[in-house]
Amino acid sequence: MFYVIGLGLGDYKDVTVKGLEIIKQCDRVYLESYTSILSSPTSELEEFYGRKVTVADRELVEQGASEILEGAKEQNIAFLVVGDPFGATTHTDLILRAKQSGIKVKVIHNASIMNAVGCCGLQLYTFGETVSIPYWTESWKPDSFFEKLAINFKNNLHTLCLLDIKVKEPTLESLTKKKKEYMPPLFMSVREAAKQLLEILDKKMSNDTSGLSRKSLCIGLARVGCDDERIIACSLEEMADVDLGKPLHCLVIAAPKLHPLEDEYVQQFRI
Amino acid sequence: MFYVIGLGLGDYKDVTVKGLEIIKQCDRVYLESYTSILSSPTSELEEFYGRKVTVADRELVEQGASEILEGAKEQNIAFLVVGDPFGATTHTDLILRAKQSGIKVKVIHNASIMNAVGCCGLQLYTFGETVSIPYWTESWKPDSFFEKLAINFKNNLHTLCLLDIKVKEPTLESLTKKKKEYMPPLFMSVREAAKQLLEILDKKMSNDTSGLSRKSLCIGLARVGCDDERIIACSLEEMADVDLGKPLHCLVIAAPKLHPLEDEYVQQFRI
Repeated sequence: MFYVIGLGLGDYKDVTVKGLEIIKQCDRVYLESYTSILSSPTSELEEFYGRKVTVADRELVEQGASEILEGAKEQNIAFLVVGDPFGATTHTDLILRAKQSGIKVKVIHNASIMNAVGCCGLQLYTFGETVSIPYWTESWKPDSFFEKLAINFKNNLHTLCLLDIKVKEPTLESLTKKKKEYMPPLFMSVREAAKQLLEILDKKMSNDTSGLSRKSLCIGLARVGCDDERIIACSLEEMADVDLGKPLHCLVIAAPKLHPLEDEYVQQFRI
Repeated sequence: MFYVIGLGLGDYKDVTVKGLEIIKQCDRVYLESYTSILSSPTSELEEFYGRKVTVADRELVEQGASEILEGAKEQNIAFLVVGDPFGATTHTDLILRAKQSGIKVKVIHNASIMNAVGCCGLQLYTFGETVSIPYWTESWKPDSFFEKLAINFKNNLHTLCLLDIKVKEPTLESLTKKKKEYMPPLFMSVREAAKQLLEILDKKMSNDTSGLSRKSLCIGLARVGCDDERIIACSLEEMADVDLGKPLHCLVIAAPKLHPLEDEYVQQFRI
């Protein structure tokens, strides 16, 4: 059996009782390590599970799927995912491959930022399409996500912005070499995201009719589900000066009109 | 401390390790019982936790908040919610009241249908606004949710439809009496939801420009996260004849154009 198990958002104790029981009796355990992170180091997970944990980077998951799935018809293999298993496309792909190879698959759900973001007090029902904000480079500054954000805003919907993560990304120079070299890990902060959004806004100003502006209400969230979780509500402009500390961060652009209960709840996070 | 703890979607073992540890040392434990249900009966929870569990119906949660929060400054009170704590507005309200009374609040997240719906293979990022489909009566047939659904469809977004639940609803006749009488619990099935949607479609046919039709792809989900989970993909028309068995059900109206990976994943659920 191939088990895909969500670990939730905080530390090693955010796994479910069901998930833990399964992991403890698995023959091999992989931890997906490139779409999100837990606050617990792998050694802590290994000790808690009583199992060796193999860290699976993007290369292994996307190109070494057969290695991960090997023997899963007879043995029990666990593939651990921070958050919920269906958060990222590559996991769906892995599940599909397993099923196509005649391997039985069982998914153990857990909290994902897609639902836990409700902790900011905005109702989950009134979120529109989720967007991902990528890191810009000198020569590559994509802004196509902005249009989705503007549509949500115009329709009075909140937008969850997932912020870019770069873990074990090969350096441009080493791409053609035999021995790859990796960049240090990067996690986009709400401050960086706000700055990029402001730059896009400045450029679009005259064409954008959504009403989204530098003064629009944003909510910055850091380390949701951890003991040191932080939530800040302020204008987009102000968010560009906010420091929420360690990763992971995400940013919510609130709809222009809040429900009274949303408004009341968000007040506690105002700076 | 007032703990609001998500129990996830399946049975008593879907609580997180962290959540379970907290429940076991709480002085009072409440289980919210009117926005969702677990497959485990309360007695099973009590045995697993080693704690008495008080079932909290809508009346207690919405009017008896002070009873629930009593003593929470000195004692530890757990309020258990099926799914994630931020799934329903009334829980947000309870948390807000606690904070306003100077009571410390800690939330333990878990899976919610809002993210677990990803198990149908449609990407969570491309869901639009969530809608709730209410039970119709002879004289009350609200259809305002349809407009949101049509907007999502037009914007090539999926729609999660949450289906009505009626638990411990007083009968109309007993509303004015001293002793309330309650209707038997009702959980809307995907079949009932599809029938209501078809009725609305028939009525709007000439005015609706979204392209949504009787032939549009729907996905019916039942008991997500349980061992007997079932998922069916078919047209809206066909869904009106589908029987997915016991509650809870939810219905997804897929966007008109699927991503190739979504399409491939959904194939396995086709009837």
